[in-house]
Amino acid sequence: MGGDRAPDEIVAGARRAATELGLPVVLVGPPERLVGCGLEVLAASQVIAMDADAGSSVRTMKDSSLVRAAEAVRDGRASAMVSAGNTGATMASALLRMGRIKGVARPAIATAIPVPNSTPTVLLDAGANAECNAEWLVQFAQMGAVFCRHRFGIDEPTVAVLSIGEEPTKGTALVKEAHALLADGRALAAAGARFVGNVEGRDIMTEAADVIVTDGFTGNVALKTLEGGLRALVGALLEAFASSEQARDASERLRPALAPLYATFEPEGIGGAMLLGVDGVCIISHGSSSSTAVFNAIRVAAEAVEADMVGRIRSVVAAV
Amino acid sequence: MGGDRAPDEIVAGARRAATELGLPVVLVGPPERLVGCGLEVLAASQVIAMDADAGSSVRTMKDSSLVRAAEAVRDGRASAMVSAGNTGATMASALLRMGRIKGVARPAIATAIPVPNSTPTVLLDAGANAECNAEWLVQFAQMGAVFCRHRFGIDEPTVAVLSIGEEPTKGTALVKEAHALLADGRALAAAGARFVGNVEGRDIMTEAADVIVTDGFTGNVALKTLEGGLRALVGALLEAFASSEQARDASERLRPALAPLYATFEPEGIGGAMLLGVDGVCIISHGSSSSTAVFNAIRVAAEAVEADMVGRIRSVVAAV
Repeated sequence: MGGDRAPDEIVAGARRAATELGLPVVLVGPPERLVGCGLEVLAASQVIAMDADAGSSVRTMKDSSLVRAAEAVRDGRASAMVSAGNTGATMASALLRMGRIKGVARPAIATAIPVPNSTPTVLLDAGANAECNAEWLVQFAQMGAVFCRHRFGIDEPTVAVLSIGEEPTKGTALVKEAHALLADGRALAAAGARFVGNVEGRDIMTEAADVIVTDGFTGNVALKTLEGGLRALVGALLEAFASSEQARDASERLRPALAPLYATFEPEGIGGAMLLGVDGVCIISHGSSSSTAVFNAIRVAAEAVEADMVGRIRSVVAAV
Repeated sequence: MGGDRAPDEIVAGARRAATELGLPVVLVGPPERLVGCGLEVLAASQVIAMDADAGSSVRTMKDSSLVRAAEAVRDGRASAMVSAGNTGATMASALLRMGRIKGVARPAIATAIPVPNSTPTVLLDAGANAECNAEWLVQFAQMGAVFCRHRFGIDEPTVAVLSIGEEPTKGTALVKEAHALLADGRALAAAGARFVGNVEGRDIMTEAADVIVTDGFTGNVALKTLEGGLRALVGALLEAFASSEQARDASERLRPALAPLYATFEPEGIGGAMLLGVDGVCIISHGSSSSTAVFNAIRVAAEAVEADMVGRIRSVVAAV
């Protein structure tokens, strides 16, 4: 029931995943609004609004679709949850109902950011924890490395700290301390990853590092700034393409060349962010998710289950 | 002498400013490398490297072009300084030689970020102070409002705090405190500006606010993330445009429609960032500045002098 286009786009994406991927998708929500969709329905009478306060909603709305979905994972009735709803409430439901993996200080949101002609960069924390300490960032690096390896097949992911200069002396106290802890090497060796130092904002969409760690405030600002910037440029391009008969005609002829680019930069192709550190697979899809975004998020959820992402994170965290 | 393309591009931009704008531009650097350029030269024998440590360079290299340029402003031999060199050393030179405006806690870098079909958004601090307190952010808001009014002609600029949600309860302790101080209204009333609450990263390239304040770490990450994202998308576009005979032909026909867009998104058109709060005009141009970027930076410097930006900031800060 979550997301700006729920339930129609959510249901459409779920049906497509069931048909094309052969996955047994369960919908959680008010049965009367989901009848006839051809998928199993888990009843939940309440809906947490997109702008509701996360903590109090999850505490008081025990029959909400978000809380029931997290319980389904906890109870083994589902292998993963996917939500395009209120991000804070999704995190709180997962955290409170599934619990944290033993040894994890704080779950973090890992987002895959497209890199032209390469595998995406995993950025975390993209918003779960506005304020962090250096030890958490080290754990984010470990969890991000595991995610990167099993999601994108990178054998020994490179890890960097997001800063405002490459020098270890630049940045905030948090960045300097995280840099020093990661430079030690042992924490990342346990996760099969390698530290490459600090990177800057301009390196996110390049091959500078496979995993970039930062606090949830900075990560969220970076992610949304990127989203806004790309949207502004794409909007201006589309306006230019439509600005005259000649431009319309020329842009039509450019379509085959531009199509692969659309696939790279389109956030819906990426398949949502994953909340790492909770004891179950939880995929957070964009609030404006279309059926394609939901389809991809379900695909990524299934892959995370297949890859035993949670078990692998548990092993790495336990090993340190 | 600063910048990746110094001195050739710097000299070319300076000559263009002298010719087209009729400005008496003074070059600061080793005279033997600047002979025959037709502009007044102020001798300086040393050059602070782009990657040199800012503080120690400025303290020890007293005959560097950066230090001498800042001294020229202090001594009234120049009305403003423009540098595409080491940003940290530029700030340190300006701060140590020109000094701060009385009452200013910390100078901040104000950058103008393009907004399609509108005036740019002024983002500050874009990197002068990695760690800030809420009172500094309030002063950044005042200085940014003065800059915005006199640079872009906005009568009553709107001011926002960069956060990870619009609600005053979201974000870091710094953001919440700055929000509370600005919501009071008095600090901004003195600067003729109006507080509009929190905005997110995706709002930077929109008309959500004329001035957005943040700490220098977040601001620098946001700015460089935007730069990297736009560069990645533009690079991918150019690749697509060149990918086949048909694409090359079609993109050639699109050129008239795309030209104005280039002017909007091209950072070189913006004219550099301004260090607000020091007792003199100091424009920081991008390290990779071409002659066009240098020309625009000099134009902006001249406009800031004409508008008495420093005097106006002094009045607002003194009034609070």
